[in-house]
Amino acid sequence: MTYVIREALEIAAEDNLAELLARRRRLLGPNVPTFYEHPLHIVRGNGVWLWDSRGRKYLDCYNNVPHVGHCHPRVVEAIAQQCGTLNTHTRYVHDAILEYFEKLLTKFHRQLGSGILTCSGSEANDVALRMAQVFTNRTGIVATDNTYHGNTALVSQLSDKNAHIGGDASNVVRIAAPVGQATRYQDMPEDESQCFAGSVSDAIALLESRGRGCAALIVCPYFANEGFPALPEGFLSLACARVRAAGGLVICDEVQPGFGRLGSHFWGHERAGIQPDIVTLGKPMGNGHPVAGIVARSDVLAAFRRVFRYFNTFGGNPVAVAAARATLETIEDEGLVDNALRTGRYARQQLRHLAGKWPVLGAVRGSGLYFGVEICDVDCLPDPRLASRLINAMRHTGVLVSTTGRFGSLLKIRPPMPIAAEEIDMLVDSLDNSLRSMQ
Amino acid sequence: MTYVIREALEIAAEDNLAELLARRRRLLGPNVPTFYEHPLHIVRGNGVWLWDSRGRKYLDCYNNVPHVGHCHPRVVEAIAQQCGTLNTHTRYVHDAILEYFEKLLTKFHRQLGSGILTCSGSEANDVALRMAQVFTNRTGIVATDNTYHGNTALVSQLSDKNAHIGGDASNVVRIAAPVGQATRYQDMPEDESQCFAGSVSDAIALLESRGRGCAALIVCPYFANEGFPALPEGFLSLACARVRAAGGLVICDEVQPGFGRLGSHFWGHERAGIQPDIVTLGKPMGNGHPVAGIVARSDVLAAFRRVFRYFNTFGGNPVAVAAARATLETIEDEGLVDNALRTGRYARQQLRHLAGKWPVLGAVRGSGLYFGVEICDVDCLPDPRLASRLINAMRHTGVLVSTTGRFGSLLKIRPPMPIAAEEIDMLVDSLDNSLRSMQ
Repeated sequence: MTYVIREALEIAAEDNLAELLARRRRLLGPNVPTFYEHPLHIVRGNGVWLWDSRGRKYLDCYNNVPHVGHCHPRVVEAIAQQCGTLNTHTRYVHDAILEYFEKLLTKFHRQLGSGILTCSGSEANDVALRMAQVFTNRTGIVATDNTYHGNTALVSQLSDKNAHIGGDASNVVRIAAPVGQATRYQDMPEDESQCFAGSVSDAIALLESRGRGCAALIVCPYFANEGFPALPEGFLSLACARVRAAGGLVICDEVQPGFGRLGSHFWGHERAGIQPDIVTLGKPMGNGHPVAGIVARSDVLAAFRRVFRYFNTFGGNPVAVAAARATLETIEDEGLVDNALRTGRYARQQLRHLAGKWPVLGAVRGSGLYFGVEICDVDCLPDPRLASRLINAMRHTGVLVSTTGRFGSLLKIRPPMPIAAEEIDMLVDSLDNSLRSMQ
Repeated sequence: MTYVIREALEIAAEDNLAELLARRRRLLGPNVPTFYEHPLHIVRGNGVWLWDSRGRKYLDCYNNVPHVGHCHPRVVEAIAQQCGTLNTHTRYVHDAILEYFEKLLTKFHRQLGSGILTCSGSEANDVALRMAQVFTNRTGIVATDNTYHGNTALVSQLSDKNAHIGGDASNVVRIAAPVGQATRYQDMPEDESQCFAGSVSDAIALLESRGRGCAALIVCPYFANEGFPALPEGFLSLACARVRAAGGLVICDEVQPGFGRLGSHFWGHERAGIQPDIVTLGKPMGNGHPVAGIVARSDVLAAFRRVFRYFNTFGGNPVAVAAARATLETIEDEGLVDNALRTGRYARQQLRHLAGKWPVLGAVRGSGLYFGVEICDVDCLPDPRLASRLINAMRHTGVLVSTTGRFGSLLKIRPPMPIAAEEIDMLVDSLDNSLRSMQ
């Protein structure tokens, strides 16, 4: 009897999903991305858990935006409290933004002495590029080809994956991102660091021949969207030296690796062993509240501010700052960077153990709580189709992950930072069971 | 004794402000805009009132972002409640964004059938321009010269006031904004509508000669930053017809006039009597929460979505939608558009009365709760210096306004929408007293 009732409810819920999808198409247009063959209708979140409209629980091993956990009470309380007190803008003086920057800047090398708050990582990168252009009095930008830095017209030019509406900008050159030694099916060139620096030099020469010069190299220091290849220590140093020799600046996009996710370091550029002139921040910064920003050398930021009287209506408002501050303090007070280090190591160890059992599981790589495993076919070649089937199967076992990398064959695992070892066990069991169910 | 203690506290507070300003310069860089010669350190807001760190109360006649009033309990509650329940993104299906668009779209002509949510008006305009470019397969943009549409690299190109870092874009032509008949010191050309349409035609011809063609005319239909000139009915119709004849689209930036502020209509384009293909929204949409968006013809939006797989991490998340929905419902349930009409009329009547007494007060103009008065010198010429002295004097009487317009000589009055007639009386008294204090 109980079962019959649940069945009926489930059918109704499925009908409701079809209706929701039809309304989405009508109201939001075609091609609005959703996850999974059977999209999820999520209604509630808490910590590392999400619930759908049918009350089913999912272990969230994908979402990096709720950095300290979905609906973390400290962040919720900070937002609610400040929303009820004041929410204006930076044209009035307010101490919270200053206190936040004083705290945030302690996390960076002292050369990075000032910052700007925006609403999104896209806005932050859009400003960062112009900051480099003003400071260097050059306009050329070098980026890697399979990255994603955001979606403004300027920032979209940085990736091959985005359409360049209005045409390709002649001041942007995209070079091949490193492949790394971590795939089972592809060896790293012997001197990939040299190769990459060579590509940077070629790009600079091209920009110079076009009269643009080199304003900046912008990279995600973890090459997150490019499948976080395993790279030797100091991999980026030579490329950065080439950029500096040409008079350019180094911009590190920390939207994905930043705020301790990599476990070993608070920032991706620290892990890569380089010192950027400009750093951009986003997604996890306010645990889901729209806050992002730029931290830069004071002379570089000042050059921008002197030319461009930047004001962002919502950027750095007291509520955004309250969200960002609560997030940063929670990372520290709950020891989440340390958890990322320990639990991430445990996860990769368990995944490597599982990879010994399943030939389709290739290299396991990553750092802290940003890791993945390559899905390969029988010839050890990337198998994005199988990877896609796997994440859909895992979704049905109640575990959420996605795919990434150049071929879309890498399982992308990037849970909220408070994930525990026993939840990693659930993730590994889900992968194991999903593989078994496909045999 | 009491007096002495307060004096000491006031000095301490002043010292604290100097220290805050020094920290701002160090942490946020130079040229971070603040209002007033003696910047305000605001710590609390409620309705149309703000309080500084010394407990002094100010009547807010400037801020349009807290549209339904600072810290409106309904919006605060909606944000807090949703923050504690779920805050993910549009890659999961959620009904709140659909319900919001269903409600919002009833406020538009049925031709505008779908939309996208972003974090800021800048992002919305950046997308809107590319939407027009994709749909028309042209890249040229016509804008007015003294406007402000935001601060991304692309959108900054639309205004003469922003530095065009990286150089002037060859696909943007800026034409003179209309002057209107409302200044005391300047007559409107007899056929300003014809003149403006002529400028549009010239701009289109220039864009065509550059091989760009005309993708769009983008205007604030109220010319808010250009001093909201008083324009005859149908002023923009001829210009829009020229754009359409050249195959271009009309984009209306409703960030400032929208959501009922003009009293007579819900949108500025309705008041102007034109029908745009794309509308952009921002500032007041979430009463201070970072939410903005685009509403467009479904075929135009679909063209963009087919080419560009737009995803905005924070745009349209459940919390942003909760803020936007609570704001929209509050506008309706509290009759705020009607209040804007009535109270705005009363305000202009009182200001005209005052202008009869003070020769430096020129034309009073505006619509609903977006209005102002020209400040003139003895020759009836714009006097931005006096206007600036006036807003600083008014600040010291506890009333917040600003200046705008091409010459910066127009008092810009744009209070939260629930302002009452007795508060308008305070505003008018403040202006009167400030003028008297300057004699």
